[in-house]
Amino acid sequence: MVLTSCGLCNGNTADALHAAAAVETLHTFTLLHDDIMDNADSRRGYQTVHKKWDTNTAILSGDALFAFSYGLIDYYGKSPDYTKEQYARLNHVFVDATRIVCEGQARDMEFETRTDVSVDEYMLMIEQKTATLLQASMQIGAIIAGAPDELIQKCGEIGLKAGIAFQIQDDLLDAVGDPSKFGKKPGGDIIAGKKTYLSALALQLTPSEIRAELSSILQQKKATDQQVDFAIKVYRDYGVLEAAENAISDLYTQARNALSTFENSIYKDEINSLLDQLMIREH
Amino acid sequence: MVLTSCGLCNGNTADALHAAAAVETLHTFTLLHDDIMDNADSRRGYQTVHKKWDTNTAILSGDALFAFSYGLIDYYGKSPDYTKEQYARLNHVFVDATRIVCEGQARDMEFETRTDVSVDEYMLMIEQKTATLLQASMQIGAIIAGAPDELIQKCGEIGLKAGIAFQIQDDLLDAVGDPSKFGKKPGGDIIAGKKTYLSALALQLTPSEIRAELSSILQQKKATDQQVDFAIKVYRDYGVLEAAENAISDLYTQARNALSTFENSIYKDEINSLLDQLMIREH
Repeated sequence: MVLTSCGLCNGNTADALHAAAAVETLHTFTLLHDDIMDNADSRRGYQTVHKKWDTNTAILSGDALFAFSYGLIDYYGKSPDYTKEQYARLNHVFVDATRIVCEGQARDMEFETRTDVSVDEYMLMIEQKTATLLQASMQIGAIIAGAPDELIQKCGEIGLKAGIAFQIQDDLLDAVGDPSKFGKKPGGDIIAGKKTYLSALALQLTPSEIRAELSSILQQKKATDQQVDFAIKVYRDYGVLEAAENAISDLYTQARNALSTFENSIYKDEINSLLDQLMIREH
Repeated sequence: MVLTSCGLCNGNTADALHAAAAVETLHTFTLLHDDIMDNADSRRGYQTVHKKWDTNTAILSGDALFAFSYGLIDYYGKSPDYTKEQYARLNHVFVDATRIVCEGQARDMEFETRTDVSVDEYMLMIEQKTATLLQASMQIGAIIAGAPDELIQKCGEIGLKAGIAFQIQDDLLDAVGDPSKFGKKPGGDIIAGKKTYLSALALQLTPSEIRAELSSILQQKKATDQQVDFAIKVYRDYGVLEAAENAISDLYTQARNALSTFENSIYKDEINSLLDQLMIREH
């Protein structure tokens, strides 16, 4: 995303390599710490760091990666090709995104013990936890390209809207995706009692008896197959699945509208086809 | 240290407030995570964060403080009073110090399971874990004051040497400090089997039978009063205490020599009297 948005704004993509590596490193740091907090066993097909070594190693390796990621931004401070304003803005976007991602993760953890998470709260959480880093990535590429404020903002919007859409789609695929393509048993989020766009909206849209039953299924965190079917039927009958599809479609449209501001280029084509792929993805 | 070194280099100390807050915040983040790793119950007379809330809260609050500390450095990117070079250098010193502190903590944890830690390795560990942040603090104040390279380096040296001396002194006070003043039972490090300047040097200076006995006392991590007395007697008889006193004295002299480069000021007096207090401290 960093490299492509740099190209989108007529920058030299190679100039954005240090920043792209910084974002990747920052993301890896958040995964290391998130895996401790979620007590996750595996990540990308490998044992998580805290399982393979121990929690202390995972905390400290994460901290070191965090520092290392900031260190990669130093490049733009030392290179004479960037103004102080560009460098300061890069740092600001990077730091601010990190802070917001931490806030999103805190919110996500807080949701675990709550039963009254609203759609608005859920949207804010996924915006912070997932979409902010994509927004920042797109902004960072634009800043390195020396783009004007308006285009930096447009680039951020593409990342932000696509990131939110991606997460809602994830929630939708978990419930009604084709298990042979999605690679997970359907209804995993329902069984885990995880807050999703679907559960938050369903608890807002359903009458009190249905709401009580759905809420109890989610709270027990070990729904039976029948209960999973019940929940998915509720999602379908009360228009929750349709609302999710519409929300995803609207968000991708907003991302595309922001993208349409830019002149044609291979980078614009690249992002357009990425949005296409994301929109029709089944896993 | 940040404010005083800024004054020492003829800067306006108020200019260094954001950086001083950044260092304090960064330090607090490392304490939050260290307390998890050391499973510490209390800090500064209060329950540690991971005990009062939980480990996840302490990991994430630490991460957020880490991001917040970098965010405070943004001030120098936005203010027109600082050049890009100053701002880049501030970021570089800050990031580099963080990385080195993480490395020092990793080394310290690794030492726990080893019995052959040399004095050189121990010195490197305390330099990284403790003295680096003092070095960085003094450098940061000088950078903000617009000091030339040579003075930035001298300021760093004052912090570095004083920091190493402080830690060796801590080891010495733990063994032979006046318990009524030090506030801890003497020999705590021996009982805990902790690697210190004294234990590392003693294991290098003693003949094989004494070394074997001392090593076994330290490894069992529950020395009796008699064994503590034995270890301290070894430290005394084999010149370890004297060597520690000499090392401390040399380091403070080096810090003072670096300080003597600067013209007289209230800030120079301040640092001199801080060094005086540190050198004769009994707790």
